[in-house]
Amino acid sequence: MSQFMKYAIQLAKMVDGQTGVNPPVGSVVVKDGRIVGIGAHLQKGDKHAEVQALDMAGTQAKEATIYITLEPCSHYGSTPPCVNKIIDAQISKVIYATKDQSLKTHGDDILHAHGIEVDYQYDEEAASLCQHFFKAKAQQIPEITVKVAASLDGKQANDNGQSQWITNKEVKQDVYQLRHKHDAVLTGRGTLELDNPQYTTRFADGKNPIKIILSRSGDLDFRQQLFQDTSTAIWIYTENPNLTTDQENIDITYLQQCHLTTILQDIYQKGVGKLLVEAGPHTTSEFLQSDYIDEFILYFAPKLIGGAGTYQYYQTDDVFNIPESNQFEIVHSELINQNIKLILRKK
Amino acid sequence: MSQFMKYAIQLAKMVDGQTGVNPPVGSVVVKDGRIVGIGAHLQKGDKHAEVQALDMAGTQAKEATIYITLEPCSHYGSTPPCVNKIIDAQISKVIYATKDQSLKTHGDDILHAHGIEVDYQYDEEAASLCQHFFKAKAQQIPEITVKVAASLDGKQANDNGQSQWITNKEVKQDVYQLRHKHDAVLTGRGTLELDNPQYTTRFADGKNPIKIILSRSGDLDFRQQLFQDTSTAIWIYTENPNLTTDQENIDITYLQQCHLTTILQDIYQKGVGKLLVEAGPHTTSEFLQSDYIDEFILYFAPKLIGGAGTYQYYQTDDVFNIPESNQFEIVHSELINQNIKLILRKK
Repeated sequence: MSQFMKYAIQLAKMVDGQTGVNPPVGSVVVKDGRIVGIGAHLQKGDKHAEVQALDMAGTQAKEATIYITLEPCSHYGSTPPCVNKIIDAQISKVIYATKDQSLKTHGDDILHAHGIEVDYQYDEEAASLCQHFFKAKAQQIPEITVKVAASLDGKQANDNGQSQWITNKEVKQDVYQLRHKHDAVLTGRGTLELDNPQYTTRFADGKNPIKIILSRSGDLDFRQQLFQDTSTAIWIYTENPNLTTDQENIDITYLQQCHLTTILQDIYQKGVGKLLVEAGPHTTSEFLQSDYIDEFILYFAPKLIGGAGTYQYYQTDDVFNIPESNQFEIVHSELINQNIKLILRKK
Repeated sequence: MSQFMKYAIQLAKMVDGQTGVNPPVGSVVVKDGRIVGIGAHLQKGDKHAEVQALDMAGTQAKEATIYITLEPCSHYGSTPPCVNKIIDAQISKVIYATKDQSLKTHGDDILHAHGIEVDYQYDEEAASLCQHFFKAKAQQIPEITVKVAASLDGKQANDNGQSQWITNKEVKQDVYQLRHKHDAVLTGRGTLELDNPQYTTRFADGKNPIKIILSRSGDLDFRQQLFQDTSTAIWIYTENPNLTTDQENIDITYLQQCHLTTILQDIYQKGVGKLLVEAGPHTTSEFLQSDYIDEFILYFAPKLIGGAGTYQYYQTDDVFNIPESNQFEIVHSELINQNIKLILRKK
């Protein structure tokens, strides 16, 4: 792969987690072996990566080559078509690394018609940055990561609900990174009551995610720590029509039935492209059983909690035969100072 | 480390798992740069490694150097003292890699008095082969390995008791190796009833372990598969005085109370140096809570079983605070074709 496409991918990775329902994309404009423009899509509604890079390049873009991690668009969305901008800038060659599966029409022919060479060089890394975006856009729900921290015997807490601290400091840092890379964190009422969590990203210039609370009963205590932080939006989904608050950063959505699909579609409509689920056994098991999850991140601490297993992170009403049990693929495993991190995908 | 000590360690490893309550030991006799004798302790009551190596060397042992992974004994045990044999063989130098912590008297001075040079060169690998032997001898109980195969949510079976097959073929092969390296496998009545296991070592020339069954109630069905194999000894511990059988390979021990300590001491007295526990939640949890276990080997299959968790492998009557929960250290982790193997030690 060209060094310049590598740079474009690096740019895309820098903005991964801050582009909401849009994919992270990077772009580099190169003329006579020198970079004359760089760009990345910073957030939905903002300029696309290639437009930024072309703006930076200015007149230098003439007869230059542009590298883009994703195929340039040829339609009017929240911004005008990028192919027009490329044509106007008099670019001589376009190289991109991922086909945009979410598009009905492609711009290669338009570019060709204007004498611009187009080279599609598939790159797996570039594609992986976009693949969940394609899926999310097709289903109109966010990309979903479920995170669980548990003991080796599969418990999130002892039978009294005590869970602090099962995993170590280094895992907490890893979780802060996870939060930073997601637009929103979703949890259930039970976890709120038990753990009194903050769901913040505690590192310098980290982005705090929107907090989403699933509470069918609406039995919430607004005096809790999480509600004291008024700088981040809090969205509550409930089946309780009487739940109200004056607090400005809290948005309550009443649903007759809190179905996951309904909630996820609503969250996506509101601009959440990547959702992190950090919840107790009930909500966690609901997500892990659904077909919506893209990634399951499991941290194991090398301890056994025992008891009766009230807080086993995975519990189901139905009993399944072993061959029909919920099957995953391990895509990554590592030791984080005596804790184990597994990244899994549904099979 | 000398190449010859490496060979001695290799010899010791070859017999690891077949020496019962004795440690695996290897020895090499070297004269003028050539190996003139090799030996390993094959089983309790048999010659010690250095005696075998000296016998092989014959008159060549005169003025030779002997490498032994463990300090030679200077007392009458089941065999005469090895230092006498070394002196008689007119060895000029003894090199050993582990001090025998189980001995009250050491033979260095005796060897010195006969003009034999003694060199203690500590080697970690050689020592690790013996360390559990020292502990077992001090406590008069076997070295204990607890093996568990579970889903990622900590279950050995679904709520109906179905457990076949959670882990994959490669893990089964690994378990056969484990059985081969242990003198006996212990299980509970529940597992026998549920899984109808054989506890055999299904590879060429593999050694089948003695089968030990813990059944307080004595409610056993002798028609089960495990009892059909009459080639291996089966020892049953029970609190039921009426449990009897005519089957020759079955030995029933009646105890008023089946305390782990009592059973383990009896097993050790009968010659079991290394015990593998492959059992259901009840027996597994009893061992994992005890201070007796030397190694906990946990295989995870990348699936979630769910249900209510009747067969969570670790369950306790008491609820512990997280800081007081059963803490382990991960000494090894690996992926075995999408299954995870962890080797843990109690902290």
